[in-house]
Amino acid sequence: MGSLKLGIDLGGTKILTLLIDEDSKVVSRAKTKTSKDRDFDSITMQMKEMSEKALSDAGALWKDVAGVGIAVPSPVDHATGTIVNSPNLGLKDIQAIPIFERLFSKKIALGNDTTCGIWSEYKAGAAKGTGTAVGFFPGTGLGGGIVVNGKLQTGIKGVAAELGHMIIRYKGRRCGCGNRGCLEAYCSKVAFSKRFDKLINKRLNKSVLTELMGKDFSTLKSSVLAKAYRSGDQITCMVLNKGAYMLGVATASMACVLAPDCFVYGGGVMEALGEELLPHIRTGLNEHLFGLQPQDVKLKLSMFGDDAVALGAALLLEDCGEI
Amino acid sequence: MGSLKLGIDLGGTKILTLLIDEDSKVVSRAKTKTSKDRDFDSITMQMKEMSEKALSDAGALWKDVAGVGIAVPSPVDHATGTIVNSPNLGLKDIQAIPIFERLFSKKIALGNDTTCGIWSEYKAGAAKGTGTAVGFFPGTGLGGGIVVNGKLQTGIKGVAAELGHMIIRYKGRRCGCGNRGCLEAYCSKVAFSKRFDKLINKRLNKSVLTELMGKDFSTLKSSVLAKAYRSGDQITCMVLNKGAYMLGVATASMACVLAPDCFVYGGGVMEALGEELLPHIRTGLNEHLFGLQPQDVKLKLSMFGDDAVALGAALLLEDCGEI
Repeated sequence: MGSLKLGIDLGGTKILTLLIDEDSKVVSRAKTKTSKDRDFDSITMQMKEMSEKALSDAGALWKDVAGVGIAVPSPVDHATGTIVNSPNLGLKDIQAIPIFERLFSKKIALGNDTTCGIWSEYKAGAAKGTGTAVGFFPGTGLGGGIVVNGKLQTGIKGVAAELGHMIIRYKGRRCGCGNRGCLEAYCSKVAFSKRFDKLINKRLNKSVLTELMGKDFSTLKSSVLAKAYRSGDQITCMVLNKGAYMLGVATASMACVLAPDCFVYGGGVMEALGEELLPHIRTGLNEHLFGLQPQDVKLKLSMFGDDAVALGAALLLEDCGEI
Repeated sequence: MGSLKLGIDLGGTKILTLLIDEDSKVVSRAKTKTSKDRDFDSITMQMKEMSEKALSDAGALWKDVAGVGIAVPSPVDHATGTIVNSPNLGLKDIQAIPIFERLFSKKIALGNDTTCGIWSEYKAGAAKGTGTAVGFFPGTGLGGGIVVNGKLQTGIKGVAAELGHMIIRYKGRRCGCGNRGCLEAYCSKVAFSKRFDKLINKRLNKSVLTELMGKDFSTLKSSVLAKAYRSGDQITCMVLNKGAYMLGVATASMACVLAPDCFVYGGGVMEALGEELLPHIRTGLNEHLFGLQPQDVKLKLSMFGDDAVALGAALLLEDCGEI
């Protein structure tokens, strides 16, 4: 049996495959845009292609591969190996492990995307050496990941660590999930899009964003946000800083829930603007902290950035039986 | 070495001591009001007296006792055995374990009160047989307890499971801790007191409470609340039902944080009115639930009621090394 592992980040917009060695170092990576037809057969085909590309780029063969770890943007029910619900991929209640086993003829591990994100940070990155760590990953939505006493938390039906849906403001903003006051309604690209639409298109505030992307803010690229933010654009800075502040409020809540050794911030938005947004997270946290001093609470940026999810998926293989 | 254990619930108003046998059954109990002078020597004297009363009532001797578990209304830093901060007892940063070891000449376990509460429910009560359980204990304030994968969560400086200070309404009601929007500001006797004062004394609504206790609502007894509630008093029902509903909102948050196998509700308020308030908790939960069906989320009332904390403290002894 081989000593290499494949880790696949199967996202709504991209598929990223990493080949890693036995020391968890990335040997090669292959990336493509996720097929838009939302057909599961096309998607599995792409996953196979990217895996073969990563192997051939490294001069490796399938026989060198011990297993394939796959991360999906959905709760994963670990009791049954089911992808519970992924609107982005158009998948619902798919018993995916047998499908992937047939596709790859390898041992398979399956996990939620941001749960895999905290797993790589815990095993080898920003949260290495801790026992309990909580990760927030704002991107299109806001995903979370929780490790308690060295164990990844998945919970009933894989819903644990869906931190975007913590209620931080009862009767607050409407979230895409239908509830009101979820963290995701304050700190995610979907939330920022709505704010920009309101502040720029409806209230006619001026913003560099109009020059950069016109008037349709429905899909925001983190790179564009970073450009506007760094240009000092008032609207962009205001909206993102407030989002980060609210993420700090949620961090304060999690500090009195688990009082973890460390918090990790990753995902597209933090990847692009982590250093700039961290002080605003810190302010929201400090203004709502209970029973701890600010210096007791460790905030860290993701070490693996874009690779965190795929790497964590590969690292699930070591611990397959445990989660 | 003896096979009996003592469990002491050292509260701000009462000290309850249980003597339990090796099957965790209560053999005898002794209870007294906590000395009002807030002098630690008087308090430790009372603890010793109640322990001796529990022993003599059972015809047992100190040599029959394997250890003493003590629960305090404070975060407990398990790394150092410190009572971090207990306004109710007037204690701050007390390295208590050596003091209790000298007092009892026995093995000592020390824990936060409601953390001990969930521990007894997990080991032998409402959450027995689960892996991950979350407890909410509304009383004067609102304490919590969390068990993850069979391990009690204490976190840095013992602050884990301080669920009364989760932020459920950013910019909401002012909490006694100084923050805004904490769960405790919506669902605790302190919160209810403030509402009654406003609705009855300031807005001049009529309430049975005035007949039962006059116009000073600053200290509420759960038994009086239960009497007013069961009489159908409109103000009492409205305030308590809303508090329970908000506890349901916090439950929804915890359902997407840990997705535990079971939630347990205990403490003075639930002890008095659990059956009546549970449906309102359920409504708040169902209206804010993410990714789960209502039937996926198990809500249970505490099985041990008033004994839960002292019993959990005694049961900490088995697992002393682990937390």
